[in-house]
Amino acid sequence: MVVDFLAKYYENIEKYPVLSQVEPGYLSKRFPSSAPQDEEPMEAILDDVHQHIFPGLTHWQSPNFFAYYQTNTSTAAILGEMLCAGFNVAGFNWVSSPAATELESLVMDWLGKMLDLPRPFLPFGNGGGVIEGNTSEAITCTLTAARDRVLRKLGHNSIAKLVVYGSDQTNCSFQKAARVVGIDPRNFRALKTTRSTLFGLSPDSLEKAICLDINAGLIPLYLCATVGTTSCAAVDPLEPLCKVASKFSMWIHVDAAYTGASCICPEYRKFINGVEFADSFSFNAHKWLLTPLDCCCLWVKDPNALVNSLSTDPEYLKNEATESKQVIDYADWQLSLSRRFRALKLWLVLRSHGVQNLRSHIRNHCRLAKLFEELVEEDPQFEVVFPINFALVCFRIRPSGVAGMSNGHVDNEQGEAWKLNEVNRLNAQLLYAINASGRVFMSHTTVGGVYVLRFAVGRRL
Amino acid sequence: MVVDFLAKYYENIEKYPVLSQVEPGYLSKRFPSSAPQDEEPMEAILDDVHQHIFPGLTHWQSPNFFAYYQTNTSTAAILGEMLCAGFNVAGFNWVSSPAATELESLVMDWLGKMLDLPRPFLPFGNGGGVIEGNTSEAITCTLTAARDRVLRKLGHNSIAKLVVYGSDQTNCSFQKAARVVGIDPRNFRALKTTRSTLFGLSPDSLEKAICLDINAGLIPLYLCATVGTTSCAAVDPLEPLCKVASKFSMWIHVDAAYTGASCICPEYRKFINGVEFADSFSFNAHKWLLTPLDCCCLWVKDPNALVNSLSTDPEYLKNEATESKQVIDYADWQLSLSRRFRALKLWLVLRSHGVQNLRSHIRNHCRLAKLFEELVEEDPQFEVVFPINFALVCFRIRPSGVAGMSNGHVDNEQGEAWKLNEVNRLNAQLLYAINASGRVFMSHTTVGGVYVLRFAVGRRL
Repeated sequence: MVVDFLAKYYENIEKYPVLSQVEPGYLSKRFPSSAPQDEEPMEAILDDVHQHIFPGLTHWQSPNFFAYYQTNTSTAAILGEMLCAGFNVAGFNWVSSPAATELESLVMDWLGKMLDLPRPFLPFGNGGGVIEGNTSEAITCTLTAARDRVLRKLGHNSIAKLVVYGSDQTNCSFQKAARVVGIDPRNFRALKTTRSTLFGLSPDSLEKAICLDINAGLIPLYLCATVGTTSCAAVDPLEPLCKVASKFSMWIHVDAAYTGASCICPEYRKFINGVEFADSFSFNAHKWLLTPLDCCCLWVKDPNALVNSLSTDPEYLKNEATESKQVIDYADWQLSLSRRFRALKLWLVLRSHGVQNLRSHIRNHCRLAKLFEELVEEDPQFEVVFPINFALVCFRIRPSGVAGMSNGHVDNEQGEAWKLNEVNRLNAQLLYAINASGRVFMSHTTVGGVYVLRFAVGRRL
Repeated sequence: MVVDFLAKYYENIEKYPVLSQVEPGYLSKRFPSSAPQDEEPMEAILDDVHQHIFPGLTHWQSPNFFAYYQTNTSTAAILGEMLCAGFNVAGFNWVSSPAATELESLVMDWLGKMLDLPRPFLPFGNGGGVIEGNTSEAITCTLTAARDRVLRKLGHNSIAKLVVYGSDQTNCSFQKAARVVGIDPRNFRALKTTRSTLFGLSPDSLEKAICLDINAGLIPLYLCATVGTTSCAAVDPLEPLCKVASKFSMWIHVDAAYTGASCICPEYRKFINGVEFADSFSFNAHKWLLTPLDCCCLWVKDPNALVNSLSTDPEYLKNEATESKQVIDYADWQLSLSRRFRALKLWLVLRSHGVQNLRSHIRNHCRLAKLFEELVEEDPQFEVVFPINFALVCFRIRPSGVAGMSNGHVDNEQGEAWKLNEVNRLNAQLLYAINASGRVFMSHTTVGGVYVLRFAVGRRL
């Protein structure tokens, strides 16, 4: 019944407004305020999903959803989630369900090879991969490992001196993770980027910031470099950044949350060139690789760094396999103890699509983004604001397209700020009108003061 | 096909060895070392699950699984996971899918009422509930909130002075969470418990420890009290502990990971009496409430404390609904940005079972545990080591049942330590033999020096 229900949902998905049009508090008016005393039939529940949940869904799987970055799903992955919920093993250590651990190692190895990750990230090079829930968790874990590596030498009191670096384009989860692990908020560096580097982090500005901090008695700890930023898919130049950070023995994490999946295509692999100089690398299979939430793939060169910070050894979990040191206990690579058998869905996706079809899936989205770019460029009222590397198109109404305005530009001087504001306001109005139509859903960002509409292609087609 | 596959799995589940009998590294010998280039049919994949994954599963859903604490699943919850993976919305804020946020608020309100939680934890008392992935996350979030509340007053440098308190029975995730949020490992107090309090934390020892720390210039921050510890389901006395902790303005978290579900039965609700004096309360619906991983239910009295520590406000997520302050953005209540629509499965469980049936489910397990206790007590070779409050029976071969031994006891003096060791060794052997049979899977713990076998009833029946 639920399989048919979902099939019908996909059949009709284009009939619903992509962005939900409900008002805050809509659901509590439609449902009782207490749980039912007695069982209710699945038919009645599914009917409520249809009547009352659907209007409140923003339809992420709609082909007309172009907001944020996608989290596309697939039949194979849904089947994987069914098996995961059916077996419902809590694979915190190897013995609690060996297949959960070993399939995860295997599938992360498969994927590492598909991405052509450098040998030191893979088990035969003494590295290893693990599925975390999300990028926040991947960063929190590696940041904790990096922090403790330093504090073990310098003493815990030095925690207040540790500094972490990213750019003003780095995803907000980095700032959150830094706060969670106890980095002084004053020691979080979101280094300014500019259009001159296409909003990638400049190695010079990194080095300057580090030197200033060292002179102030602080300790550089961790660099989060991004390949495909959240706002405009900007790419930080990994190799020169790593060279700077390595001079100061910092932990370098490469966050390719959105774009990592594209590296399974040889022609996109170049964007993570330099990852060989990093300590850890993560991307979200739950974004662009047909695997639903949650599936963040993290590789580290030194799994022991994670284990040294995140392992626990309570009596109630002691077992021979762990003591033999022949197995991985993945709880020691993540924040929590219990963990879902997430490898199943990823394994099903890789097998039931195969590498070639997954490459086509990526290439098709990039091709469609290019097509959209052409359509935008053909219209003199609009402009594409950044060069397109992946499947995100950032565009806007051109300043010259706004009545009564001379040609404005991203690098406008202060005197033209009022024009920029006016253009931004108009673009925001356009986005509001588009989304209110219910026919398409896009999102926005502001980069270098410029308000842009984001058109991210990524739905399952 | 997958529905039938799962149905057959449940039909045959008792035929498999409960504890997997595979050797480390078994799976890499059976599967190729790279992902397939081309798609493979689902039949072939399911056949591999059957042939190669099943032997490596420890069957948590088997009626013969009595290890750890259960994570039971149910048909309703599996259907909920299907819908979740099918819709695959990333409900980080309200607008990204209003139904995901509002159903979560609703179902947490239903559940809060079922547990008879004090009004200040519920929305109409200005509190609120949220579904976290697991207890580690619930503790990490509340600990971060508590830490920042203090550091905002005292300055970030005081982080090295903060002290957190639990007992030597508190789950290891507390220690891990404390380490992650930057508490000096030397400032983690696992206060000793004894048999005299049935391994519950003594308010006197808490107060003494706090006073010692204050005298040493440290700052008491957070108490994690447990209702139903992982080893032996011990209950910390909430009310007197809260009175102590409140004197020092500490954050008090009540972790009822295992036992919280039982509070839906009025006769078990007494175990969390005193929760009204705490700041936060969590339990795992993914343990004993027919909902598979991950589903940790957390309520806090002051959601703003979470939001103040965990919110981010990037341009790309700005929206009218958030700015209106009429909605909850649950990303600000948890560690990560993206989040699964986990409320669906919990809502399906509550509706398709109803409160009465869920109560029967709990009571049935407790009744079966009592039955097992009687069977153990009838055999003079064995003894039940702790009084049973819930559905966990801790038992062992009695010292007097061991050939050539006089009657040993938990409170044995030093001179009798060798006897205890001998008894412990024999009990460990027994457990090993039981688990190696593949017919039943139990786990163990050591409490007060005594090795006990843990028989946790909790499978779906």
